[in-house]
Amino acid sequence: MENIKTAMENHLNNLTKPRGSLGNLEDYCVKMAEIQKRVPPQIEKKGIYVFAGDHGVAAEGVSLYPQEVTRQMVLNILAGGAGINALAGGTGWDIILVDAGVSGDDFPPDNGIKPRCPFLRERIRGGSGNILKEAAMDAEETRRALDRGKALAQDAADQGFNMTAMGDLGIGNTTIAAAVLAAAGFNAGDVVDRGTGINSAMLENKRRVVEEAVNRARVPQTSGEAILRELGSPDFAMMAGFILGLEGKGIACVLDGFPVTAAAFMAYLINPKVNEWLFAGHLSKVAGHRPVLDRMGLEPIVSLNMRLGEGTGAVIGGLMVELGVKAAREMASFADAHVTDSGASEEKY
Amino acid sequence: MENIKTAMENHLNNLTKPRGSLGNLEDYCVKMAEIQKRVPPQIEKKGIYVFAGDHGVAAEGVSLYPQEVTRQMVLNILAGGAGINALAGGTGWDIILVDAGVSGDDFPPDNGIKPRCPFLRERIRGGSGNILKEAAMDAEETRRALDRGKALAQDAADQGFNMTAMGDLGIGNTTIAAAVLAAAGFNAGDVVDRGTGINSAMLENKRRVVEEAVNRARVPQTSGEAILRELGSPDFAMMAGFILGLEGKGIACVLDGFPVTAAAFMAYLINPKVNEWLFAGHLSKVAGHRPVLDRMGLEPIVSLNMRLGEGTGAVIGGLMVELGVKAAREMASFADAHVTDSGASEEKY
Repeated sequence: MENIKTAMENHLNNLTKPRGSLGNLEDYCVKMAEIQKRVPPQIEKKGIYVFAGDHGVAAEGVSLYPQEVTRQMVLNILAGGAGINALAGGTGWDIILVDAGVSGDDFPPDNGIKPRCPFLRERIRGGSGNILKEAAMDAEETRRALDRGKALAQDAADQGFNMTAMGDLGIGNTTIAAAVLAAAGFNAGDVVDRGTGINSAMLENKRRVVEEAVNRARVPQTSGEAILRELGSPDFAMMAGFILGLEGKGIACVLDGFPVTAAAFMAYLINPKVNEWLFAGHLSKVAGHRPVLDRMGLEPIVSLNMRLGEGTGAVIGGLMVELGVKAAREMASFADAHVTDSGASEEKY
Repeated sequence: MENIKTAMENHLNNLTKPRGSLGNLEDYCVKMAEIQKRVPPQIEKKGIYVFAGDHGVAAEGVSLYPQEVTRQMVLNILAGGAGINALAGGTGWDIILVDAGVSGDDFPPDNGIKPRCPFLRERIRGGSGNILKEAAMDAEETRRALDRGKALAQDAADQGFNMTAMGDLGIGNTTIAAAVLAAAGFNAGDVVDRGTGINSAMLENKRRVVEEAVNRARVPQTSGEAILRELGSPDFAMMAGFILGLEGKGIACVLDGFPVTAAAFMAYLINPKVNEWLFAGHLSKVAGHRPVLDRMGLEPIVSLNMRLGEGTGAVIGGLMVELGVKAAREMASFADAHVTDSGASEEKY
């Protein structure tokens, strides 16, 4: 790894710019080189996986949106009308939409629309259990969700994606994110999102639900799989499995906001090495996001006060990684361009 | 203006996302609507203008790079090998390279290379005067540089650019930027860049050069044109003219880092309305950048510790504006997508 890092830094230092002057873009390029074990790295194909799922805890009045919005938004993404369609299209990402656990009937074969992206029917169960009263899933479902996530990581490799990103969709997902993090030892007050549209009574209720669910579950703080089973959901487990499954594949994964990062933290509990191939795409406006990024030692790439989900922040952050790689691949060296190098490490020309 | 703003916000609030959840991207879209007087706005063509010029003050040992690097980098951009080529290419911008005042012979007609971008020969004079000892330009040159910048703004409109950006290139340009700002009342210590490659003796010298140049010039702190004449340069004046010339054209301009923003501050002194069509593309790592952005009330779009110049930060920031516009144009409304709206202003679905 040290050789790759040094070789990549040397490559960057020979390009026609003051040393280090591309700032964080250079750091992203070095990390990408380490992930791919390739100097310079190359990003030929980028895929954003959006995991949809419902959460039984939505019955506890933790969201202003009714549960059917999850299903409606799945169809909206398929039809090309959601935020992620606009932003992925504007940044060169392929979208792969995954039904990991939406409630209700299976989606019909054609949904009455011409799909604008692949739709993977990986439903483990229709919605998770209401974590206030029962486990989100049983052990077999949890294992299956993790395994299917790993299988999707293999699919990503087979399709030639050098860079993946993860987005999420599902009413109640910030409650689930707060619950799995609280079970892992975070203070509920730090990870239950205030937001300005939720009034004090609803916020208090959401915090109570999270705290009582964690008390009910009584799972070890370090067991990612047990936490996912009791307080997570199929989509959270599948996201964690996806991240774990990327090990050794030379593929980066860019995280989106709070729910995705909470799922990533579960993967991190299972295997702390996941940080090696993770990027934090953005810092979301959701209150609990920063503490979990800090715990994982991940610095968000952009901070645009976004809190839409669906991977909208991830595709922007991932583009910054790609731009760093692009600069490394396309810029001329001092020698080739006949530009005089100052040899200094830090001076504006 | 208020009607455009309200209409744009209503448009955004009807799209299938929690209200305000695209964060800053929504603000950029609103500003773009106000600039274009169009709801939703549209960005069909983006042009980054890179202004190259030399500075006589380079003789005072304020940079580690020799002056000939300016000329070498002009040729590097023309050949496609510079940082801006990679980043503009990766974000969909056309590059327009402008020789506003490079030293030495005129560039030969073909430069021996196949140019990868238009090259505008707008040289006002070959390098500015050494501001420590003399005026950067005379009054006629200053006027001509401002006027040519305004003419380029008209060219941008004629070519159909909805969004422009500005980059700069030239050894000594952070010294000029510090000098014009110090002359406008900024504390020299706040705007002379420390950098880590310049040692204490060089930094002290750079600060002394700036302070003595300002003392020599004795120009009114509020006269942008006089400051440009005494302490600026042809490229700085042309950049200011370009910004001023965009008035009333419905075209946005995205600023790059410290030198470009210093030039923009001169335009702001001449006409404070320029802020209405300016975006701050990024926050550079150069120390003096933040104070001048704060004075103009511009919040940088991204902050990636970049300090390359050439417009490399501007093209990234401008892309964020474009993504906000794209989302506004392409996303489905709640009604069209049959998605239930919570009606709430701030809640994560």
